[in-house]
Amino acid sequence: MARNDRFLKACRKEPVDCTPIWMMRQAGRYLKEYRDIRSKYSFIEMCKTPELVVEVTLQPVRRFELDAAIIFADILLPLEYMGIDFEFTKDDGPQIKNPVRTKKEVEKMRKFVIEEHMDYLLTSIKLVRKELNGKIPLIGFSGAPFTLASYIIEGGGSKNYIYTKTMMYKEPDTWHLLMEKLVDMIIDYLNAQIKAGAQAVQIFDSWVGCLCTSDYREFILPHQKRLFKELDRSVPHIHFAFGASHLLKLVKEAGGDVIGLDWRIDLDEAWKLLNYETAVQGNLDPAALYGSKEYIKKRVEDILRRAGNRNGHIFNLGHGILPTVPVENAEYLINLVHELSKR
Amino acid sequence: MARNDRFLKACRKEPVDCTPIWMMRQAGRYLKEYRDIRSKYSFIEMCKTPELVVEVTLQPVRRFELDAAIIFADILLPLEYMGIDFEFTKDDGPQIKNPVRTKKEVEKMRKFVIEEHMDYLLTSIKLVRKELNGKIPLIGFSGAPFTLASYIIEGGGSKNYIYTKTMMYKEPDTWHLLMEKLVDMIIDYLNAQIKAGAQAVQIFDSWVGCLCTSDYREFILPHQKRLFKELDRSVPHIHFAFGASHLLKLVKEAGGDVIGLDWRIDLDEAWKLLNYETAVQGNLDPAALYGSKEYIKKRVEDILRRAGNRNGHIFNLGHGILPTVPVENAEYLINLVHELSKR
Repeated sequence: MARNDRFLKACRKEPVDCTPIWMMRQAGRYLKEYRDIRSKYSFIEMCKTPELVVEVTLQPVRRFELDAAIIFADILLPLEYMGIDFEFTKDDGPQIKNPVRTKKEVEKMRKFVIEEHMDYLLTSIKLVRKELNGKIPLIGFSGAPFTLASYIIEGGGSKNYIYTKTMMYKEPDTWHLLMEKLVDMIIDYLNAQIKAGAQAVQIFDSWVGCLCTSDYREFILPHQKRLFKELDRSVPHIHFAFGASHLLKLVKEAGGDVIGLDWRIDLDEAWKLLNYETAVQGNLDPAALYGSKEYIKKRVEDILRRAGNRNGHIFNLGHGILPTVPVENAEYLINLVHELSKR
Repeated sequence: MARNDRFLKACRKEPVDCTPIWMMRQAGRYLKEYRDIRSKYSFIEMCKTPELVVEVTLQPVRRFELDAAIIFADILLPLEYMGIDFEFTKDDGPQIKNPVRTKKEVEKMRKFVIEEHMDYLLTSIKLVRKELNGKIPLIGFSGAPFTLASYIIEGGGSKNYIYTKTMMYKEPDTWHLLMEKLVDMIIDYLNAQIKAGAQAVQIFDSWVGCLCTSDYREFILPHQKRLFKELDRSVPHIHFAFGASHLLKLVKEAGGDVIGLDWRIDLDEAWKLLNYETAVQGNLDPAALYGSKEYIKKRVEDILRRAGNRNGHIFNLGHGILPTVPVENAEYLINLVHELSKR
């Protein structure tokens, strides 16, 4: 499937010659060539123009010895076609003009039909696969239902998720209806990406860490389980819940062949909590790339030591690479992981 | 010492007639009588005027059956006298005009002399004690060194702590010097509060949860240990690290008679991790107070069940009470905790 199949092998807990690495947001603002394009197009224009998606997706792959590419897109894109009206502010943060907070507003949300609405993404995936020509595998992705719901309800990013939690705690029926609609969308969205050529899919639950375990169990788990159950099983599923060390066992229960870890929890402790039954992905603090080379090396050694000789570790940052990180440190990291993990 | 000494007994893991409760930020904007005063004075004016401090500290105590009062102040106040120039923006978020990012800037920070610089706080503590007249105990507090350092370095709140971590990872000597200066200040600050009449002290490490365990061990633990070692032992110490479930064992190692918990980790699991060697404080999601009464009751029952019959549980929110919470829900919570936990 791919000449370099380290990443896919690790997803399946098979032996590899060295630890594969890719970086969340590797197609992003820390790259000069990305900023050059971004200066000419809006973020949304970039997302919706296949030639630009292909270019930006491949930029980091050309520069670094990465073991996977990830399609350039934004988790909010499909929401537009469900009737959510948003724009990206200057720093690419989303702002939703018509937050959804009542049962009526949830009921009004339209059904998403990927082939009709987001053909540009499917075309982009096919083009990237063609360009990659089997060099490394391509990852597709989606936001998780909670994370999308919180954007829709709050109207953007949030500190305390007051509206989201108020809906959960006061109108659970409305909440569950919203989650059902989002899960329906995500299943179609990801299965179409897989059909178009995505060789793995990652689900980003960026904000679910704001919930206590009981809330996750009641308001998230059933929906998240259905999502993983109905995903195309022909490719590996990565489940990444950010800031959710306390939810790790529930995240595993929800599903995923690979569990993504942020940098907070120690990788060995996390993997033990997962009973070593899944692969793991992570977990360097993205801010470590601001450190000295000595510091970066110390952290990489620590993570590789915690991963040990077990099959099924994909190296990654614990969150997206930050826009002001020195590029040479990203390159140093990627080469270092390969070098230090040679079997 | 106090007619209602449930709180102090629980701090010391002694039996109580029912579970004591207080709320972080209980003197705050969710109270109409607080907003009335705030509309007439700036936040800083309120902090620096003993009569206003007394009034605002006592407002929630008059309204609710709380088991402790906490002096009204802000963790940044002492920094002003060390040469840090800040103001509070409209929503009371701090903005620092001269962030400290170099060794020279750290060296320039002045020594804090509480009796000289913050006599208004000591006066306020004495006045509140007099007014309380032994009804319930009074808590003093301080920010933890990491949290204060991150404000000073970033220039306010932060999302990724890039400058703070860059200093740690690239100039560890500068970092440790800053931490030493802050710990010196905090020791004097809290010991003076205790001498003035604070019957317990809480250390708020609001942002330390952004660190991985190795960073905490290297950059925080030695300083945090010294802090607890040099604090006046005549009153209990509460150590609250927010968003730091993954650091819990290290937080305990640093010190504290009571470990504060946010709402993420389950209280029983946390207490077990602490080997039941400390008391625990927490841990209702502040957003639960937006829920229905049924929802609030379910959560309170769950927390009390997890605390079990063990001595040493102080009920609290897992973070400050939010400004738009319905007051009647706060009252409902306080009475419910007492009622459901009667021994």
